[in-house]
Amino acid sequence: MESKPDIAIVGATHLIGETLIQLLHERDFPVGSLHLLDTGEAVGEFVAFGEERLRVRDAESFDFSAVALTFTVGDPQTARRIGEAAAESGSRVVDASGAWADDPDVALVIPEINPHELDAIRYRGIVASPDCHTVLLWLALEPLRERFGLRQLFVTACNAVSHQGKAGIEELARQTTDLLNVRPIEPERFPQQIAFNVLARTADILQGGHSADELRLVEETRRLLPHAELDMMVTVAQIPVFFGDVLQIYGVLEVPVDVDSLRAVLAETPGVEYIEAGGDETEPSPVTDAAGSDAVYLTRLRLAPERGDVFGVWILGDCTRKGSALNCVQIAEILVKDYL
Amino acid sequence: MESKPDIAIVGATHLIGETLIQLLHERDFPVGSLHLLDTGEAVGEFVAFGEERLRVRDAESFDFSAVALTFTVGDPQTARRIGEAAAESGSRVVDASGAWADDPDVALVIPEINPHELDAIRYRGIVASPDCHTVLLWLALEPLRERFGLRQLFVTACNAVSHQGKAGIEELARQTTDLLNVRPIEPERFPQQIAFNVLARTADILQGGHSADELRLVEETRRLLPHAELDMMVTVAQIPVFFGDVLQIYGVLEVPVDVDSLRAVLAETPGVEYIEAGGDETEPSPVTDAAGSDAVYLTRLRLAPERGDVFGVWILGDCTRKGSALNCVQIAEILVKDYL
Repeated sequence: MESKPDIAIVGATHLIGETLIQLLHERDFPVGSLHLLDTGEAVGEFVAFGEERLRVRDAESFDFSAVALTFTVGDPQTARRIGEAAAESGSRVVDASGAWADDPDVALVIPEINPHELDAIRYRGIVASPDCHTVLLWLALEPLRERFGLRQLFVTACNAVSHQGKAGIEELARQTTDLLNVRPIEPERFPQQIAFNVLARTADILQGGHSADELRLVEETRRLLPHAELDMMVTVAQIPVFFGDVLQIYGVLEVPVDVDSLRAVLAETPGVEYIEAGGDETEPSPVTDAAGSDAVYLTRLRLAPERGDVFGVWILGDCTRKGSALNCVQIAEILVKDYL
Repeated sequence: MESKPDIAIVGATHLIGETLIQLLHERDFPVGSLHLLDTGEAVGEFVAFGEERLRVRDAESFDFSAVALTFTVGDPQTARRIGEAAAESGSRVVDASGAWADDPDVALVIPEINPHELDAIRYRGIVASPDCHTVLLWLALEPLRERFGLRQLFVTACNAVSHQGKAGIEELARQTTDLLNVRPIEPERFPQQIAFNVLARTADILQGGHSADELRLVEETRRLLPHAELDMMVTVAQIPVFFGDVLQIYGVLEVPVDVDSLRAVLAETPGVEYIEAGGDETEPSPVTDAAGSDAVYLTRLRLAPERGDVFGVWILGDCTRKGSALNCVQIAEILVKDYL
């Protein structure tokens, strides 16, 4: 497509929606007219797009045949209902809400890993960005897996409160202030006190004692890497950090390696910045590096004591950026070039 | 010993020292006279022992031949120098400082696991409580290991700031207040901002990219369980929580099991409280359960998807209590009964 497509964003007042709008501006995305949409009380709010302030309109009554591209973020039920209507009107849909998680016809795409899967958009009209953890994990590890083979993977993910959108951020700030002022706290978005605390899960427990968020990472990995013969176990916990998730990884490779070979692969992985722990540079943290950053940071790469086939690494990324909004924008950049 | 031994505590103004003094009172430990000792500026401070307030005296000039039992906590150099003198004066020494970590003649003891090792006190006069993580980990897992065999263990430990004593607690509180008041923060005890952040290590990086705290858990495990043929890999990170550590565990067993058998073993493990996630009771967290508690809490026990020999579990405990001061008091309770 030569000209600039008209674009709609459903869920424009959501944290991910706002980040997406900001990224379209930052990356000089070729935007024709931009339609910010939402439902309920959010209709009528104003959201910044560069220097402009755009009014959010009602997604329910919008005519999607007017836009070539629609992003859906936020509440999955709303995203699915409105996204289906948009696709039927002929708009291409890029989803970050997880609304089509159970639909194998909606491809999950990480442009660095499986851009060819975007072909699927020709049939159903919809593609999806995987869950944030899936994006961070495989952006960092797929080149290692491809090169050395990966038999087993143990993931411990610690979620920032920004996973719960603006409400999560407000709750951590409010609880922290209340506690420091010796006022009683009232958990709302999180089931227990989150300030100065860690919660052992982030979603309902489903089969086998695993949470929905844990099973989702396993399931999305199967879809993203259908030929990988990989045993995975995942824990997703909640920590009192505003932005920037941490994933502690242990992996068992198919062959013993030396750590320099692993490091060399990471150094060539696009989108990844590796910082050695204990070196000249301070190792990355959510606050100092991951929050608001487009890169995925890695540190603490090492082999297990006396084992050449077992490695550990620490992955950090901002789930509102590469984990979600940025991945959508990168998908859209390819769509604009090759599919619209 | 029938009568009440006279006791000295070296490091009495340290967080662990104060907790130890509180536990001696709470558990009606048979105390003759109690001598609170410290060095430098701490000399002259007052510390509560039940209703009393006792003055802290100078450890450097104390005559240890007057006490049957000496606890050493806090700074390892000071603990070792003064503890050696105490042992030479005929006092039995129980250490929580890690001062003798490199001395194989000083037995590491967890009363629930290897009480017979206390015999070693007859020769050298000194026994030690292992590092906090070693205590929490093996108190929880040794009965499982003994029953089902454990081939491989992956540990991700998240430290509360109380590991850094009162200075760590003050730094998290001060930074949080400063940030909420939009004042600049100045990291002192921690190398980076700790409020609302996670740090990828808690100690210097030694060989192979592992930190001193990580290698210590591996090394202490070898000493505590010399016959275990176990591959271990450990990560120790720092989180913005005041009290209560979290250890996320993945283990590979020698044989496939069902999760009910694992649960049954945990239910019979002394000192451990297992709470099922997603059940009637809210799962344990540092703030609501671990902080200030003598029990070690477990939750999220489950098997890997489609693997009967791989399990995950979440361990919580207060490193100032069972992880350290309580373990010392429990050691001392046996010493008083059988060795003094």
